[in-house]
Amino acid sequence: MASLNDHYLKLKSGYLFPEIARRVKDFCEQNPAAAKRLIRCGIGDVTEPLPAAVIAALHQAVDEMSKRETFHGYGPEQGYEFLRRAIAQNDYRERGLEIADDEIFVSDGSKCDCGNILDILGHRNRIALMDPVYPVYVDTNVMAGHTGPADESGVYQGLVYLPCTPANGFVPEIPGEKLDIVYLCYPNNPTGAVATREQLTGWVEYALKNRSIILYDAAYEAYISDPRIPHSIYEIPGARECAIEFRSFSKNGGFTGLRCAFTVVPKTLLAGTDDGASASLHPLWLRRSTTKFNGVSYIVQRAAEAIYTADGKAQVRRLIDHYMGNATVLREGARIAGLKVFGGVNAPYLWAQAPNGITSWQAFDRILHEANVVITPGSGFGKNGEGFFRISAYNSRASAEEAARRLPALKW
Amino acid sequence: MASLNDHYLKLKSGYLFPEIARRVKDFCEQNPAAAKRLIRCGIGDVTEPLPAAVIAALHQAVDEMSKRETFHGYGPEQGYEFLRRAIAQNDYRERGLEIADDEIFVSDGSKCDCGNILDILGHRNRIALMDPVYPVYVDTNVMAGHTGPADESGVYQGLVYLPCTPANGFVPEIPGEKLDIVYLCYPNNPTGAVATREQLTGWVEYALKNRSIILYDAAYEAYISDPRIPHSIYEIPGARECAIEFRSFSKNGGFTGLRCAFTVVPKTLLAGTDDGASASLHPLWLRRSTTKFNGVSYIVQRAAEAIYTADGKAQVRRLIDHYMGNATVLREGARIAGLKVFGGVNAPYLWAQAPNGITSWQAFDRILHEANVVITPGSGFGKNGEGFFRISAYNSRASAEEAARRLPALKW
Repeated sequence: MASLNDHYLKLKSGYLFPEIARRVKDFCEQNPAAAKRLIRCGIGDVTEPLPAAVIAALHQAVDEMSKRETFHGYGPEQGYEFLRRAIAQNDYRERGLEIADDEIFVSDGSKCDCGNILDILGHRNRIALMDPVYPVYVDTNVMAGHTGPADESGVYQGLVYLPCTPANGFVPEIPGEKLDIVYLCYPNNPTGAVATREQLTGWVEYALKNRSIILYDAAYEAYISDPRIPHSIYEIPGARECAIEFRSFSKNGGFTGLRCAFTVVPKTLLAGTDDGASASLHPLWLRRSTTKFNGVSYIVQRAAEAIYTADGKAQVRRLIDHYMGNATVLREGARIAGLKVFGGVNAPYLWAQAPNGITSWQAFDRILHEANVVITPGSGFGKNGEGFFRISAYNSRASAEEAARRLPALKW
Repeated sequence: MASLNDHYLKLKSGYLFPEIARRVKDFCEQNPAAAKRLIRCGIGDVTEPLPAAVIAALHQAVDEMSKRETFHGYGPEQGYEFLRRAIAQNDYRERGLEIADDEIFVSDGSKCDCGNILDILGHRNRIALMDPVYPVYVDTNVMAGHTGPADESGVYQGLVYLPCTPANGFVPEIPGEKLDIVYLCYPNNPTGAVATREQLTGWVEYALKNRSIILYDAAYEAYISDPRIPHSIYEIPGARECAIEFRSFSKNGGFTGLRCAFTVVPKTLLAGTDDGASASLHPLWLRRSTTKFNGVSYIVQRAAEAIYTADGKAQVRRLIDHYMGNATVLREGARIAGLKVFGGVNAPYLWAQAPNGITSWQAFDRILHEANVVITPGSGFGKNGEGFFRISAYNSRASAEEAARRLPALKW
């Protein structure tokens, strides 16, 4: 008889956001009046339309697809050269970071990339993640069979959780033990924290010493306002030898519904083989891309290219300023409400402590029912997220202001 | 030290089409005059522009993305309901096949789906594939660690190859042994063969008896002209209990550069668990989709929806007729050239026997150098493809006619 992948059966309940969607749907059905004044500060989804430069590029690319002479069928699986070059040039080389065009792999999303990267890694790696953490890192390792079962709090056997708390500023201490794969995400989802150059240098030195690989998720780099904070792990010397970086157009250009991202795999990054030698990961990721993927839609790649034009850059800047303006408004509302709040300065997320020792889901239900605002319960991101909740700044200014007004009215 | 997935190191040379691209590039650089008259009948990529209904839907969806009120961010990972319903209704229910909307999973390509499906299956399945075969089925199993090393002819230990030859009409005999997973692809790539209702019934009965799963790739179903030939495995009673079907908009709507496909996972399809029980695969695939994927671009899903409008259907019909007209022209050219040729009647591929016992790559080089036509060497599809080559009908009529004229001029 055909067998299924039993590791899937270890997964705890639903993925976080479907569960939130279910509770919100139930609430709205039971409270139609409140539903009308609902403000969604939950899922980290952009709300503003695509930049004009992107829209223009899309229309033009669609027109190309309508004529035989300019029609595009299959493209290179790893992305068109025009886009790989624009990325490598603008995001790296112009910032003094040596990344070659063919070290850029264009994909349809960082979520996919973060999961798929496990395909090219071995099954005996000791894997560490931040806690709280983007659930995709955990769940994809469970699915790949890298863990035992989970305990009551959702902690899986076999993974190493690196606590991120107010005490360490949500940047984990360098571990005393040897770890093979370390997921780092800065600006952080969900805590909104950033890592300093010194902290990232510590991690790169650790990885070089232990021949570990850092999986660096920089999907939110565009939100960094502090000029001292690195935007890329490759700003740290030695990172080309120990890090893979994930980037996305979702949160800068607002591509959450359009789908485009990229992963940087330096050719100088090695990993061990079964016979004790080591080999470059770059050809493996290339092989994965060409074998299990057929590239991103041509019209979407043209849209991503438009992000790098002068107009596109200015329009993205305005989007970022808009969302970070919301973050400032929401931070002020949380302050007036007496909440202890982190993040929201170099990231579009605020990380608030639930008052009086209540749980994250209790806070979620209170805020939903009493303020009709949807937030994300911190416990959905891991054990160390318990007692916190995430407020997303992705909204209209009016809704951010209204949410900020409602928060202080909550009687905890 | 971090380790890599050693199974990747078992993979033989490059994926077929990059290797063809390399040889053609070398030839063109060395023969600039001949390069100008090159006709590509190699890779199965469409050549005609997108249907007008699709173009209109794309422009409209792009406009929606330009306004706050109609902007779409993250969509449901498994696809928008409007598209899942259009698919289930048009491709299945209107043909009398009971498939629910939520058994349809919209994706960015059948290539991805055929590879990703292994994520939810166990690692101890006995896996069978047709030979010759679409290389993705083989390579993704190698990557997943389901095989030993390959021998000289590219045959991997641990996989069961089902020979498809002129003698069995390129439809494998029902095996005497128990197999857990069987890949079937009809209309077939590369041979252009189709399976009759009786033959598919035999396979479904085999699968039900052995509790095997059929992975049915029907990407080319739109090319079937013989009304007796099933378009879907679900036309066979019992298939809902033993088959997953892969479909694509690449070859009907010409979406190879736009990227949209879907997979059907019936809720009634079970597989075994480690503890000897069995469970439905549907929730596993849903979980995989929501965790490792972020859905297809909204504008592309609107484009796919347009395929199901009256205009869209008529325009797709004209595209299919165009390519199948080419197939007829090429079959006649091959006949005049004295080639023994199969397929090209219910599929856009012709499968020709290389004359005088020469190898597939020898035929490739001869046809490239002497006729300046690119074909695909059959040996790239497996051991039983050796001595054959595939001629693709994806071309302009003028190019198909010119290729058909050049074939008889070859002096074998």
